[in-house]
Amino acid sequence: MQTSLEKRLSAILPVKEEFLSQAQERLDRLTKPIGSLGQLEDIARRYVAIVENIKPVLGRKIIYTFAADHGVVAEGVSAYPKEVTHQMVYNFLHQGAGINVLARHAGAEVVVVDIGVDHDFKPAAGLVIRKIARGTRNMAQGPALSLPEALRAISVGLEMADQAQTAGTTLVGTGDMGIGNTTASSAILSALTGLPAAEATHRGTGIDDAALERKIRTIEQAIQGNAPDPNNPLEVLAKVGGLEIAGIAGLIIGCAFHRIPVVVDGFISTAGAMIAVALNPAIRDYLFASHQSVEIGHRFMWEYLGQKPILNLSLRLGEGTGAALAMSIIEAAVKVLTEMATFTEAGVAERKS
Amino acid sequence: MQTSLEKRLSAILPVKEEFLSQAQERLDRLTKPIGSLGQLEDIARRYVAIVENIKPVLGRKIIYTFAADHGVVAEGVSAYPKEVTHQMVYNFLHQGAGINVLARHAGAEVVVVDIGVDHDFKPAAGLVIRKIARGTRNMAQGPALSLPEALRAISVGLEMADQAQTAGTTLVGTGDMGIGNTTASSAILSALTGLPAAEATHRGTGIDDAALERKIRTIEQAIQGNAPDPNNPLEVLAKVGGLEIAGIAGLIIGCAFHRIPVVVDGFISTAGAMIAVALNPAIRDYLFASHQSVEIGHRFMWEYLGQKPILNLSLRLGEGTGAALAMSIIEAAVKVLTEMATFTEAGVAERKS
Repeated sequence: MQTSLEKRLSAILPVKEEFLSQAQERLDRLTKPIGSLGQLEDIARRYVAIVENIKPVLGRKIIYTFAADHGVVAEGVSAYPKEVTHQMVYNFLHQGAGINVLARHAGAEVVVVDIGVDHDFKPAAGLVIRKIARGTRNMAQGPALSLPEALRAISVGLEMADQAQTAGTTLVGTGDMGIGNTTASSAILSALTGLPAAEATHRGTGIDDAALERKIRTIEQAIQGNAPDPNNPLEVLAKVGGLEIAGIAGLIIGCAFHRIPVVVDGFISTAGAMIAVALNPAIRDYLFASHQSVEIGHRFMWEYLGQKPILNLSLRLGEGTGAALAMSIIEAAVKVLTEMATFTEAGVAERKS
Repeated sequence: MQTSLEKRLSAILPVKEEFLSQAQERLDRLTKPIGSLGQLEDIARRYVAIVENIKPVLGRKIIYTFAADHGVVAEGVSAYPKEVTHQMVYNFLHQGAGINVLARHAGAEVVVVDIGVDHDFKPAAGLVIRKIARGTRNMAQGPALSLPEALRAISVGLEMADQAQTAGTTLVGTGDMGIGNTTASSAILSALTGLPAAEATHRGTGIDDAALERKIRTIEQAIQGNAPDPNNPLEVLAKVGGLEIAGIAGLIIGCAFHRIPVVVDGFISTAGAMIAVALNPAIRDYLFASHQSVEIGHRFMWEYLGQKPILNLSLRLGEGTGAALAMSIIEAAVKVLTEMATFTEAGVAERKS
């Protein structure tokens, strides 16, 4: 019997060429020089192909922010104490964080998922409690997660995608919170691609040179010690990943399965997208790359995923903030396709032959 | 007696350091790693300094799209016939163009200004008729405009800024429509900076190699024939510019005078911004650079203006479309500053020292 994950992975196919070309054909009849809206046209075309509707209307938008702790913080890899993970979850619930402000501006809801925070939350509006563990174990000392734990965390993401589908969501964003999670994300990048840890690793929330050196050595140690098979994405995820990253990977797989376009946030979310795409390369077609982060490894991730980031604003906050900002551009792109007049409708002369 | 233009130019001073540092101080107390919202923080800081208010709220937003014709189209420099200028004005008024869709998405109004279209419009909602001439003369044969014509066109822009001020506008965008106006914009860039025409000139709405060669030679001929003094921005504007570019320059000067932040659209609008900044370098502080266009000369313009573009989406449409898209990012940046919780308010631990 196939698991829910296997069933979804095997059902995801590349988007259909016919929808891409139908969208292009309409874009070329709109009152503008051909191709003059650049990346907006690429976005509109792909949105159409994902949802298989030439006249899509964006309605409900939800950003899922997965929160979890990381055992690797014991190695001194972060500028902030571990408690900030759960404190920031409360900040999300009280609408005070960057993601709250930017999601509101984009007209998106925020759903916070406790998938592995080392703190007991009471039920609250906007919070989904699906704790798999009270954080990962220290990857420098052994595997961060067991394979069953990683799979259960992925299932939480799949469940959120199912909920998004049921709720009629037209655009999903990914987000993360977890002190220590740039370390796990750099480790995934390095383990999957063979990129040296020194080229995959950066300052996260703002560590100094000594801590950066420590962070790089910790990642090297984690990869050497755990020896994840680069051809086995689930093993990479379990050994050097994180619970929120697994949840994000599951969310992305589930959205692709339901044909819901999904905007991938920054460095941590993109690590989750790498796991998803490593499991099925067709998932690439369902993603939008929100932005190019300050983290030096991020551009290698987008290259791996074959994506051109929509924004490049030197962000390095995570939470889903980049996804929220990009949602507004994606919605604008779709409106260009569906709301602009054609040359014929507007009575405007076309170009000289 | 000073003219209205001289009076405004002499009153514009750089923004005050005290507002920049007050904004920075608040940004650094918000629940995020210091500097982690990158360019959004730069935008918020400067918005505060322009309006001299540490808690600004964005309300009314207006994009002024100046339309005019260009005698230089007789040289075969555009892919579209001249009639498209007035046909697109009708498209704007009927809400069918890219700028209508994107302005609506940004919550901005569009005001179309006929500052020199070779067509007689009837009065219409959203249209301001301030025709200075029925287009410029062919710059390859002599000056595009007389100096009085250029000054009158600038005054139209000043008048629009006065109207924006009276209407309580919190963010102004610039826009253009005019077949042939990338030729005038490249000529301004080349004339002001000495950049060779071949490096300042690109394909506009999409001309082929032969037309590009013609366009470059036309600009060389216009600059050689008219010999505008690079140290006299008004002479450059008159001899090789355009009426919509003059209007945009005036709008920018007027907005800086009234301390209304102004988002500069693409290649043509940025040529207008160059004229404004050449007349008073302090005007730089009041501008936001919406995007990096496909036009090869555009990056030299932003360098001249000391601006980092907010977006880079391979756009080349004009009309104010890039300004409309960037307005949403600027509004988001201001909301980050004014709506996020501080570490103290949220009870979140600050970084380890």
